[in-house]
Amino acid sequence: MLTLHSDLAAETVLAGQWFDHLRRHSKSRLGVTRASYGAGEQMAHDLMQGIGQSLGLEKRIDAAGNLYLTLPGCDRGLPAIMTGSHLDSVPEGGNYDGAAGVVAGMAMLARWRRAGRQPRRDITVMGVRAEELSWFPAPYIGSRAAFGLLEPEALDRCARPDTGRTLAQHMAEAGFAPERIRARERQLDPARIACFLELHIEQGPVLVEKARPVGIVTGIRGNLRYRDCHIVGRYGHAGAEPRRSRQDAVLAGVEFVGRLERLWIEHEARASDLVATVGRFHTDTAVHTMTKIAGELWFSMDIRSEDNAVLLAIDRELRTIAAEISARRGVAIELGAYTNALPGPIDRGHRARLERLAGELDIPALSMASGAGHDSAVFGNLGIPTAMIFVRNEHGSHNPDEAMELADFAQGLRLLVAAVEEIDGG
Amino acid sequence: MLTLHSDLAAETVLAGQWFDHLRRHSKSRLGVTRASYGAGEQMAHDLMQGIGQSLGLEKRIDAAGNLYLTLPGCDRGLPAIMTGSHLDSVPEGGNYDGAAGVVAGMAMLARWRRAGRQPRRDITVMGVRAEELSWFPAPYIGSRAAFGLLEPEALDRCARPDTGRTLAQHMAEAGFAPERIRARERQLDPARIACFLELHIEQGPVLVEKARPVGIVTGIRGNLRYRDCHIVGRYGHAGAEPRRSRQDAVLAGVEFVGRLERLWIEHEARASDLVATVGRFHTDTAVHTMTKIAGELWFSMDIRSEDNAVLLAIDRELRTIAAEISARRGVAIELGAYTNALPGPIDRGHRARLERLAGELDIPALSMASGAGHDSAVFGNLGIPTAMIFVRNEHGSHNPDEAMELADFAQGLRLLVAAVEEIDGG
Repeated sequence: MLTLHSDLAAETVLAGQWFDHLRRHSKSRLGVTRASYGAGEQMAHDLMQGIGQSLGLEKRIDAAGNLYLTLPGCDRGLPAIMTGSHLDSVPEGGNYDGAAGVVAGMAMLARWRRAGRQPRRDITVMGVRAEELSWFPAPYIGSRAAFGLLEPEALDRCARPDTGRTLAQHMAEAGFAPERIRARERQLDPARIACFLELHIEQGPVLVEKARPVGIVTGIRGNLRYRDCHIVGRYGHAGAEPRRSRQDAVLAGVEFVGRLERLWIEHEARASDLVATVGRFHTDTAVHTMTKIAGELWFSMDIRSEDNAVLLAIDRELRTIAAEISARRGVAIELGAYTNALPGPIDRGHRARLERLAGELDIPALSMASGAGHDSAVFGNLGIPTAMIFVRNEHGSHNPDEAMELADFAQGLRLLVAAVEEIDGG
Repeated sequence: MLTLHSDLAAETVLAGQWFDHLRRHSKSRLGVTRASYGAGEQMAHDLMQGIGQSLGLEKRIDAAGNLYLTLPGCDRGLPAIMTGSHLDSVPEGGNYDGAAGVVAGMAMLARWRRAGRQPRRDITVMGVRAEELSWFPAPYIGSRAAFGLLEPEALDRCARPDTGRTLAQHMAEAGFAPERIRARERQLDPARIACFLELHIEQGPVLVEKARPVGIVTGIRGNLRYRDCHIVGRYGHAGAEPRRSRQDAVLAGVEFVGRLERLWIEHEARASDLVATVGRFHTDTAVHTMTKIAGELWFSMDIRSEDNAVLLAIDRELRTIAAEISARRGVAIELGAYTNALPGPIDRGHRARLERLAGELDIPALSMASGAGHDSAVFGNLGIPTAMIFVRNEHGSHNPDEAMELADFAQGLRLLVAAVEEIDGG
């Protein structure tokens, strides 16, 4: 048997239609917008439910609104094969970030149906809620809620910027049961999951640069995030204050970030996986002027690595550097609160399978780290064997110019179908 | 003779009353506000005119609204001794920046009157209009207009931020004659001025740190000002973009400003006078987020030196550095338009006289550069022998906490009175 992957033309056409539907119904000013627990996300869930119904799949919606569409296996006692991704998007984002993984799962189940075959195990496609941080500032809300891992305080602390209403309020309004999430009731049992395979567009430029349609993920970078670093110095006259008595917040910040970049380059030289981003860096726009020494500065840091030990070492080094610069320059560098999202482990066996199958199927694939976080990290950290397939995508993600070719998607889909078929048959 | 300076108690009391009047009538939310060509500045001019009238001084108001109050000398054919400063303030500024120099001049003339003496030369106190850049972004408007040096386009280009109306409109509404300023008609003849001595509060912390009530200025720093430096890189995903393909505007800006600071330290090591300030430095607050590589950055630079050759060398070095960083990091660093205000030369003879007199009168004085620009720079650059006296002031200037002790002012006044008496008698 093992032939589902050799004829996916019909399902590729279907997938193209589903993508069109998603785009048409979530178009916003510049791109597409599918707010977590908002109309756009719900529209995507409705589309997937409709497809599931037409394919005769089992449907379940959990207390957090996550959607599970299952093709029942012959032996329902076996742990299920799971795939899927999230259905929300950032504001004014692209059409594929998240959705591609759910569409791929549904296309795969459509292929099983068209072949008239039944898998040995349940195959479940999950439509995850609320993965994008733009709406509620807590990571992986849907997938963590599914496993009873969402910290209850996030339900009340996180408010959607466009509505001002909390996560709990939005969940309830959308018809779900935040009180069960608050009680950490488990919606999904890790022991009942054989593996989780997530297909997702690549969010960086690597596959474009290397001219490969498909990536096979080696690890999902965890992160350290410092949302509100703050430097307090002293405002002063630009001409009349001698260098040695200045407490210049800009010069202190510039030195600090320069040192961060040096740390990065040193780690890179030791082949230690790391990326670092200072996305916000600003003086006080209400007060700063050309002729005044800056007395305050704010910045953020987002530091990622496949290896959490590297992240923790960086945090220690940054605190030493901050203290040293603060003392020398007479300023206070406060790194503030930070979060540490653990790297997501990728299962060696599944990764090796994907690499082998790509070779056998003549799919040009590249093994690479995932710089972005994904729901897969939640599954992986629970010990569920997890793997990820990336699809080439131009212009990055989280913007309206996101551009995945359907032909590249078809290659990723082929790899997913082949892997699931083999896992189920093995 | 030469005794005016030995009894200034009455005039010091008067000066204190005048300062109180100024503060009381220009109090704003946090400090004092005397807008250029606004109500607060006019109130100060009215006060000085009233004092001039009570002292029986000659009054003249020029086409730009500058005020001249003159104690006529015995020989009116001789060039005049001039003193004075500006009467505007920054928004929510302090009471003394500018005003101290006019109050000192009036107190000096009051002393001549009380002594019943007539100088040999005319002694003129000038109340200069519109020195502070906060209101109209052109330097030294009043003093340059007096000499026919204000570029006509500034009359229409500069709009006051609080009213939106142009400099020409404000001049006309206040009853002056912008068309004569536009025609570059000279209001003041450099050949008729023997010298210009300006008393001003120190705007930096040097006199406080060195515990001296009085400073004697060695030179007025000129400046290079880059109002709108701009770095254009490319926005990207914080986790998924490898270091080498990033075009990170923050890292480019951080390196650039770090190099500027290194240049500064190198110049300082060669005893070359320099200060540099990056007062604004910011990513796009509407777009930047923690998880996005910054694609744009804006900053300003204010670089000052007593030596214009140093400034021009710095400009060349910065352009080389900008080009080098731009090429290496794949960004465009645009320094944009800049202005170069020439350093203000201080007359060696007058400076030496002030230093000698301070010694003779037992006034603890420090010779020091003026980091801030002053109207004196306009006089000095026209070849008029110019000198400046600083008075100690806590907390810097351009803020509500500006704090000059009347006892320190009295020491500065004593030095001014002694110098003018000696120049007039010489």
